[in-house]
Amino acid sequence: MTGAESLVRTAVDGGVEVCFANPGTTEMPLVTALDSVPGMRAVLGLFEGVCTGAADGYARMRGKPAMTLLHLGPGFANGLANLHNARRANTPLVNVVGDHATWHLAADAPLTSDIAGLAGPMSRWVRANTSAETLGADTAEAIRRSLEPPGGVVTLTVPADCQWSEGGSVARVAGPSPRRPVAAATVEQVAAVLRRKQPAAMLLGGQALTRGGLEAAARVAAASGCRLLSETFSARIERGVGIPAVTRLPYFPEQAHEALAGVRTLILVGAKDPVSFFGYPGVPSRLAPAESSLEILAKVEEDVTGALEALADALGAAKPGSSATLEAPSAPTGPLTLANLGAAIAVLQPEGAIVVDEAATSGGPYGSLAAAAKPHSCLMLTGGAIGQGLPTAVGAAIACPDRRVIAFQADGSGMYTVQALWTMARESLDVTTVLCSNRAYRILQIEAARAGNVEPGPKLRGLTALEPPVLDWSALARGFGVPAVKVESADDLVKHLRRVLAERGPSLIEAVL
Amino acid sequence: MTGAESLVRTAVDGGVEVCFANPGTTEMPLVTALDSVPGMRAVLGLFEGVCTGAADGYARMRGKPAMTLLHLGPGFANGLANLHNARRANTPLVNVVGDHATWHLAADAPLTSDIAGLAGPMSRWVRANTSAETLGADTAEAIRRSLEPPGGVVTLTVPADCQWSEGGSVARVAGPSPRRPVAAATVEQVAAVLRRKQPAAMLLGGQALTRGGLEAAARVAAASGCRLLSETFSARIERGVGIPAVTRLPYFPEQAHEALAGVRTLILVGAKDPVSFFGYPGVPSRLAPAESSLEILAKVEEDVTGALEALADALGAAKPGSSATLEAPSAPTGPLTLANLGAAIAVLQPEGAIVVDEAATSGGPYGSLAAAAKPHSCLMLTGGAIGQGLPTAVGAAIACPDRRVIAFQADGSGMYTVQALWTMARESLDVTTVLCSNRAYRILQIEAARAGNVEPGPKLRGLTALEPPVLDWSALARGFGVPAVKVESADDLVKHLRRVLAERGPSLIEAVL
Repeated sequence: MTGAESLVRTAVDGGVEVCFANPGTTEMPLVTALDSVPGMRAVLGLFEGVCTGAADGYARMRGKPAMTLLHLGPGFANGLANLHNARRANTPLVNVVGDHATWHLAADAPLTSDIAGLAGPMSRWVRANTSAETLGADTAEAIRRSLEPPGGVVTLTVPADCQWSEGGSVARVAGPSPRRPVAAATVEQVAAVLRRKQPAAMLLGGQALTRGGLEAAARVAAASGCRLLSETFSARIERGVGIPAVTRLPYFPEQAHEALAGVRTLILVGAKDPVSFFGYPGVPSRLAPAESSLEILAKVEEDVTGALEALADALGAAKPGSSATLEAPSAPTGPLTLANLGAAIAVLQPEGAIVVDEAATSGGPYGSLAAAAKPHSCLMLTGGAIGQGLPTAVGAAIACPDRRVIAFQADGSGMYTVQALWTMARESLDVTTVLCSNRAYRILQIEAARAGNVEPGPKLRGLTALEPPVLDWSALARGFGVPAVKVESADDLVKHLRRVLAERGPSLIEAVL
Repeated sequence: MTGAESLVRTAVDGGVEVCFANPGTTEMPLVTALDSVPGMRAVLGLFEGVCTGAADGYARMRGKPAMTLLHLGPGFANGLANLHNARRANTPLVNVVGDHATWHLAADAPLTSDIAGLAGPMSRWVRANTSAETLGADTAEAIRRSLEPPGGVVTLTVPADCQWSEGGSVARVAGPSPRRPVAAATVEQVAAVLRRKQPAAMLLGGQALTRGGLEAAARVAAASGCRLLSETFSARIERGVGIPAVTRLPYFPEQAHEALAGVRTLILVGAKDPVSFFGYPGVPSRLAPAESSLEILAKVEEDVTGALEALADALGAAKPGSSATLEAPSAPTGPLTLANLGAAIAVLQPEGAIVVDEAATSGGPYGSLAAAAKPHSCLMLTGGAIGQGLPTAVGAAIACPDRRVIAFQADGSGMYTVQALWTMARESLDVTTVLCSNRAYRILQIEAARAGNVEPGPKLRGLTALEPPVLDWSALARGFGVPAVKVESADDLVKHLRRVLAERGPSLIEAVL
């Protein structure tokens, strides 16, 4: 058995089902092994950021890692931005990066670079394989490390000769450690705080945003009166009618301060102490009121849901009843405002949809309307590295072929990994992209104004505007093999969105804002 | 003066004229300074690899650095692949990367990452600025370091508060060290070898591929009978009628061995001891015959041209006469073969064209025909990180607005940084892209066959084929604002290439192979 075969066999035996790949010469033995060993689907991305973002989306939906297969340092570097998002999402993800043959490294051939140096900043674990004999074991260890709670990005480099040489053996993937339960004393301490009935808020993240976590959190809120907030950017949150709704912590610090105003105790539940996305002059990094105290019910790697349930029980909270039925929004009509855009998606998205939200400044109204939509999962941009949306939609669609994926996508961000559209077409994925075409890096225009640059000069204007020339997203999508249409009114958006959601395969609706 | 203003003023005073930018919130004070300080052109790329590749192309043509302006670790990471190519090309290039405000870093906000760790592998010099007061001096030092012979990539991180704070002062950019002359004894030693008249070859790289370098090398060859070879991938080479032609060292080791067969002494002139691009079983990394000896006339950072001239004088070589006139190829007709593709470009390219060659497996015949074309500069893929061509064409066009740029581009490679087409349209650049649409990663199919996988399975086939679906490059180009046409015969290629070369502004011809 070659080293390459031992890697693929070990991964398949360890539950890895999909490889998002953009391989090169140094990965050809692994590609050959993907053919000789059954059990792993290979999905081509035409740019590496597509592969890493897809692996992130896949794991957010499946709770287990996909593999990426990337070419040497520069190919891997192209995937780093979405690995940054995966890192912030605590996504289990296994990167396999080919390297030159061990004996060829010293020659410093043109493609040689410090792969481990590049991998470190975005990986929780990095290993350089050095022989075919140890490649199975290295692979098993990589998978286990990726799954250690709360999950994380790992990177294994594999020299070409270790792939093609004989001597490989399959290794068993050890189960990851179970999530550590939260100590009863910690639960009781938080319960004691909540029993005082002073203004408190729970900030929910990670596992707390699963349906089970949200239901337990809602029991706590009902019994104690504490407020429920979710992280500003969640790796995954369950939303919609019948699922307890929580308030998302706003993005800008002024609004976040408002959301947290009056809170005497902030309780972290699978979330970090919230900080401002950027530093602004005179604004502290921490968002919680200075006079508030902080409690940690559960860290993100702990049994967050169990802790919430124990807390609810400690407070004597009732089991959840049926949630109040929100009034479903009605299909919008008229001009294509952001409110109408959000309403159209919220009204039409089917049960069980996966909404990948990288709509940025175009997404605001949808966020509030989504609570009244049919139950769905929402995946957000966790690390701020734009260009996550379309690739993550690819991965989510491959993870859940029975669910409709809606990529709610800003135009500026979408451009970074636009090649993802081709993979949607090749794999016939049920991804409906709603492309918000406002033809600007609007957030930068807002940030510049916030910083006092209210009369932007030509360079600021030029560097924040996506026109001229106008990006013709319909032409681009068709160029990648995805049927597309451009809409300029709410009525047309509703008409075409209804149509494409009833069809199989990918499509793109360019919503001109 | 703010720190940001001191950075821009220092750079402008130091001769930096262009900033290729994809900024974010942490770079907004620098964008504001680009407006308040005159003298630096700001060019937007919709993906960071466009910016770094453009800065590489600019400097290859101008011999001085452009600046990039990139957003934090993930944005910078998107530019790394083309920085790898720039590093291999010894290109002077100054990256400016914004970072969080110094006091905000400890908050570990979502976009925080180890920027210096990411920068190290692709930079010759990295510095983290820490105050507005020192930002001018840090900028001056960055520019000087980038220009130290033979030139290189430097990265300066600048926290947002150091940009917006007052206290900046302009620093003078010290001139870089002059290129060190090669010792007379070294020249004499090589001359003595050549006087023995045993089979010898000079491998030319860097400055040796300028017109002056090539002319001196041709004198040496005429006087000594030694063969002239150029590196497989040159940062820049002057070619065409009237310029001494050299043989490019082939890519595959078998062919490289053949080109070097019989050589008793290999003389390196601004080039490295040649090694195989990849390691193959049973093939040594070094390409030179094992029994040959090695001489180094000049290292890439030394005065390479001066050394060649001194060597020619030591050999009593005549001053160059007029070169033999090669027979110009005639306009091809018939099917669109690779030979016809190459001939069409060689025949029609105007005097002084800049050919950016990332045609990969589609480019072979052109390389031989180019010696008979009108004099031109050719820029190649130096580091093997594909996706260099279109961005480098952007930079070359901005560097030399009076010269026509021809991007001779493979389809697989072109996809990595396809967003460069938009910048060509926005800046109305005279870039003619000839897109070689063979709808495959052909090199990988060849490499797999070389490795013995002659009956590829479905996964190898799928991971090396760019169809289905077919990428419609004409639609893609139009989507980015670049007029485009698809051609399927040599006659149509000639017709449309002739037409677009007579027009201003960008265009794309999709050559279906």
